[in-house]
Amino acid sequence: MSTQPSKSLDTFTNPRIGRPYEIEFEIPEFTCLCPKTGQPDFATFRIRYVPDRLCVELKSLKLYMWSFRDEGHFHEDVTNRILDDLVAAIGPTWMEVEGDFYVRGGIHTVVRAWHGDRPDEVE
Amino acid sequence: MSTQPSKSLDTFTNPRIGRPYEIEFEIPEFTCLCPKTGQPDFATFRIRYVPDRLCVELKSLKLYMWSFRDEGHFHEDVTNRILDDLVAAIGPTWMEVEGDFYVRGGIHTVVRAWHGDRPDEVE
Amino acid sequence: MSTQPSKSLDTFTNPRIGRPYEIEFEIPEFTCLCPKTGQPDFATFRIRYVPDRLCVELKSLKLYMWSFRDEGHFHEDVTNRILDDLVAAIGPTWMEVEGDFYVRGGIHTVVRAWHGDRPDEVE
Amino acid sequence: MSTQPSKSLDTFTNPRIGRPYEIEFEIPEFTCLCPKTGQPDFATFRIRYVPDRLCVELKSLKLYMWSFRDEGHFHEDVTNRILDDLVAAIGPTWMEVEGDFYVRGGIHTVVRAWHGDRPDEVE
Amino acid sequence: MSTQPSKSLDTFTNPRIGRPYEIEFEIPEFTCLCPKTGQPDFATFRIRYVPDRLCVELKSLKLYMWSFRDEGHFHEDVTNRILDDLVAAIGPTWMEVEGDFYVRGGIHTVVRAWHGDRPDEVE
Amino acid sequence: MSTQPSKSLDTFTNPRIGRPYEIEFEIPEFTCLCPKTGQPDFATFRIRYVPDRLCVELKSLKLYMWSFRDEGHFHEDVTNRILDDLVAAIGPTWMEVEGDFYVRGGIHTVVRAWHGDRPDEVE
Amino acid sequence: MSTQPSKSLDTFTNPRIGRPYEIEFEIPEFTCLCPKTGQPDFATFRIRYVPDRLCVELKSLKLYMWSFRDEGHFHEDVTNRILDDLVAAIGPTWMEVEGDFYVRGGIHTVVRAWHGDRPDEVE
Amino acid sequence: MSTQPSKSLDTFTNPRIGRPYEIEFEIPEFTCLCPKTGQPDFATFRIRYVPDRLCVELKSLKLYMWSFRDEGHFHEDVTNRILDDLVAAIGPTWMEVEGDFYVRGGIHTVVRAWHGDRPDEVE
Amino acid sequence: MSTQPSKSLDTFTNPRIGRPYEIEFEIPEFTCLCPKTGQPDFATFRIRYVPDRLCVELKSLKLYMWSFRDEGHFHEDVTNRILDDLVAAIGPTWMEVEGDFYVRGGIHTVVRAWHGDRPDEVE
Amino acid sequence: MSTQPSKSLDTFTNPRIGRPYEIEFEIPEFTCLCPKTGQPDFATFRIRYVPDRLCVELKSLKLYMWSFRDEGHFHEDVTNRILDDLVAAIGPTWMEVEGDFYVRGGIHTVVRAWHGDRPDEVE
Repeated sequence: MSTQPSKSLDTFTNPRIGRPYEIEFEIPEFTCLCPKTGQPDFATFRIRYVPDRLCVELKSLKLYMWSFRDEGHFHEDVTNRILDDLVAAIGPTWMEVEGDFYVRGGIHTVVRAWHGDRPDEVE
Repeated sequence: MSTQPSKSLDTFTNPRIGRPYEIEFEIPEFTCLCPKTGQPDFATFRIRYVPDRLCVELKSLKLYMWSFRDEGHFHEDVTNRILDDLVAAIGPTWMEVEGDFYVRGGIHTVVRAWHGDRPDEVE
Repeated sequence: MSTQPSKSLDTFTNPRIGRPYEIEFEIPEFTCLCPKTGQPDFATFRIRYVPDRLCVELKSLKLYMWSFRDEGHFHEDVTNRILDDLVAAIGPTWMEVEGDFYVRGGIHTVVRAWHGDRPDEVE
Repeated sequence: MSTQPSKSLDTFTNPRIGRPYEIEFEIPEFTCLCPKTGQPDFATFRIRYVPDRLCVELKSLKLYMWSFRDEGHFHEDVTNRILDDLVAAIGPTWMEVEGDFYVRGGIHTVVRAWHGDRPDEVE
Repeated sequence: MSTQPSKSLDTFTNPRIGRPYEIEFEIPEFTCLCPKTGQPDFATFRIRYVPDRLCVELKSLKLYMWSFRDEGHFHEDVTNRILDDLVAAIGPTWMEVEGDFYVRGGIHTVVRAWHGDRPDEVE
Repeated sequence: MSTQPSKSLDTFTNPRIGRPYEIEFEIPEFTCLCPKTGQPDFATFRIRYVPDRLCVELKSLKLYMWSFRDEGHFHEDVTNRILDDLVAAIGPTWMEVEGDFYVRGGIHTVVRAWHGDRPDEVE
Repeated sequence: MSTQPSKSLDTFTNPRIGRPYEIEFEIPEFTCLCPKTGQPDFATFRIRYVPDRLCVELKSLKLYMWSFRDEGHFHEDVTNRILDDLVAAIGPTWMEVEGDFYVRGGIHTVVRAWHGDRPDEVE
Repeated sequence: MSTQPSKSLDTFTNPRIGRPYEIEFEIPEFTCLCPKTGQPDFATFRIRYVPDRLCVELKSLKLYMWSFRDEGHFHEDVTNRILDDLVAAIGPTWMEVEGDFYVRGGIHTVVRAWHGDRPDEVE
Repeated sequence: MSTQPSKSLDTFTNPRIGRPYEIEFEIPEFTCLCPKTGQPDFATFRIRYVPDRLCVELKSLKLYMWSFRDEGHFHEDVTNRILDDLVAAIGPTWMEVEGDFYVRGGIHTVVRAWHGDRPDEVE
Repeated sequence: MSTQPSKSLDTFTNPRIGRPYEIEFEIPEFTCLCPKTGQPDFATFRIRYVPDRLCVELKSLKLYMWSFRDEGHFHEDVTNRILDDLVAAIGPTWMEVEGDFYVRGGIHTVVRAWHGDRPDEVE
């Protein structure tokens, strides 16, 4: 089992396909680089999703978040990129990704993106 | 009366079949093992339900939660497993199970699963 | 006027029959016995109701709550029992009874039961 | 890349055109002058928007907010002016601008203005 | 091992005689009777001590606190009585007992009693 | 046993003469009249003392506090009067009386008075 | 009995000359005028004192505080003036006056002044 | 009376020379420029002092704080400069100046400087 | 490098022998068994120390805390045992161990033990 | 002026040599690598100091903290290393460095180290 940063996301079969349920991750340890200046950016990411046929494996999610450490990304793009990669890997019924970035230039930025429709049964 | 951990859940007849009412448990003392590394995981479980014909007995619920102590489980699976076992034992009108797991790899995970429809009368 | 514990609930005529209004009691001094082990249980009870033709008299409510001191009761049953007795005594338009029990076996239990429909005018 | 205050707002192409998502900025470092007395005013600005084809670039937003430093503006006018300039620059699907001004003459003023319709998918 | 209420307090040998250390108990489930009216009283007890040669065993402390349930006691007396009994049982270097009683006659009463001197090493 | 308001304070023998301990009462239900206008005043009284040979009995304290209901008293005087009466009745080693009066004429008043020296052993 | 604003402070004989005790007033309803601009200023005053032979009467204190309404005063001066007037009227053992003024010109000002020595017995 | 920013600080004679008292200002509306980049910096200043023969006039303090708006200053220097200027203007018995600066480069900076000895009488 | 629970504590040379500094650990994931009933106990441990020549390695501390999972221990003993083992392994200048145990039998227990003298330089 | 991470710390002459004053930095954006596993660690650093002849320049401090991003360090060592480097660069009268590290292996670690004596004048 790899312990190196990686863009590949391991998945496992949703243990209860068909049941409406929800998984929520809070990840305060995200850092990447500013694509303009090369200086480090920091953020807390919050991810919530309702799985369809697959779930994302926790350790691979950690290594995936780690994989941005030496890459340059804009706030809006990296938040959507993380949503894209997770959607491509597990095709969830519904997913929300929120990137909450530390102050830069006196401005605190939060980006929130959604995929799919939140089922009514999920309260 | 057993005092050993056990997957069997004792039940008793709902003392007021037909009345809409709700039972809520908070259980901060849950531990199991990581199925990949064998290392201990810890969680707080919150369970709410509207009973139909049966209720779950409190001491057997304690022994049931204890029974996971030496077993390996993924977060998503064990939360759904607890919901499955409780549904199989008491067939509630509505039930919610929330597993709130301690930080692993810098990630805080919460899993919430539901069974049935919450009656309108239950506020 | 008796000062002994008693299951009988004194009532008085609702002083404003027809007006939608609400009465709320918080009773932190409830104790009964566990029907399995005989050990004491403790709870805080919260009762809210919209009266119809009768109200419950405060001192008799105190003696009523006291009357459970030496009796064995399960959490779910005693909460419903208190709702039943109050409904039988005063026939309220709407009533909610919540029993909030101290930790037993590492589990904190709350039971909430309802009778009737809460009028729209009562917010 | 300029580091001088400027009314021109740099933009970049929305990296996920078509996806419903939201960007939120909190900017506690805003100051301009009172158009009547020439004395400095201070405010915290909060901006939220759902992008259409363009996003506003963070550093140019900082320089834009800075550009008001030596200008005289009324509270109501400058809040709407910022909304106008941002709408002209990026044509968002929906945008909210809130100016929260420090106490003047014992009065705390907040101005909130909106453009467009908030999509249902954005929760 | 008894599970009946009892005034006898089991002890065990202090596992580190000579080391300055401290043990603190919070016991929110205390009830006795008013010696004048026979009505139930409720209290939370807080006990802190620095052991000498003996410690008090937790389960026997629970049964000891339970043993007051059907006895009549004044607040001042029962707090001192609990301190006396604990001092007689384990002879601590220092002990504090606080009884925090629920409102009676509109009066909230707290009684605090001490035995011995708190060692300087205990911070 | 009287249940009428009375200035006489019943006492009982300190159950542990010689031990340093402390008794604290909080009495949120005090009312008297303004000696100038006859309008009702309300206060919360807080009393703490270290007993010498006598303690004050709780119910008589309630009746004593009640006895001021139809009497006119200035805030400073009634706080000291209560301290005087308690000192005369039980001669404590140390006592503090605090009267915390509701707003009158836009002014919130608190009066604190002391008798004797607080023993070092009382922490 | 006057109900007009007045600089004269009525006093009454300290009901317990010789006893160390303390009186505390909080007066959130103070207003005067700025001596430069004539605009109204607002403040909360907090006064604490240990009386010697005289106490200040509450209603006259209200009328005294009211008497500043149409007068122009600097913050530092009016706080000391109130302390001076109170000291002249009642000659307390110790007194503290704190004026906590609303924001003016973006500046929040608090002035605290003292007279005499706080007795050791006053805790 | 000037309403332009100015480094000159108006003073007035301490209205109670010889009395120990204290004046506290909180000034959240400070801005200057970074001497390296020319970009604006923002801070909240807190000033406390015990006056000797002179006090600083409030409006001139506002204009003084305003006078830094277009000047370049390092955090450490401007905080000491403000203390120096105030000490030069009014020669206080004791003074504390705290500059609490907004985040720059991910670092939140606070500078605190003192002049003279705080008198014992000032609590 | 082992990943199994173990009573052996790895150490490393204090990187700054002679400098007064302090290390603090909070460990909310501790569980052992009750030596009387075999039922699981849970606690949060807090450890603070001033190192002398050795420090305790973080991963071995985790494995050490894990090693109690299947052992029976009284609260007082296990807290002192952990202090003993850490003192034996690293011989700190000063150490504090606090075990904060979940409610058992309605009683919340905290045990605090100390070794050595806290240096004055450590604030 | 460099914008690359660097271990060299720029300094400037203390603008008020001889005055007791204090500078405090909070730096929530620190990351380095675990020297055992190569995985990223995150921390918030808090630094306070009383300067002697030199101060540390803010931007170079940011680049210095950034310079640990790709290096492996133990928590205890890196906290002392930062203190050592700052002491070598500016020789402060007194300095405190606190590293507050994110949870690893279920353990939250804080390291605090000191250099020199805090002057009495610095409150």
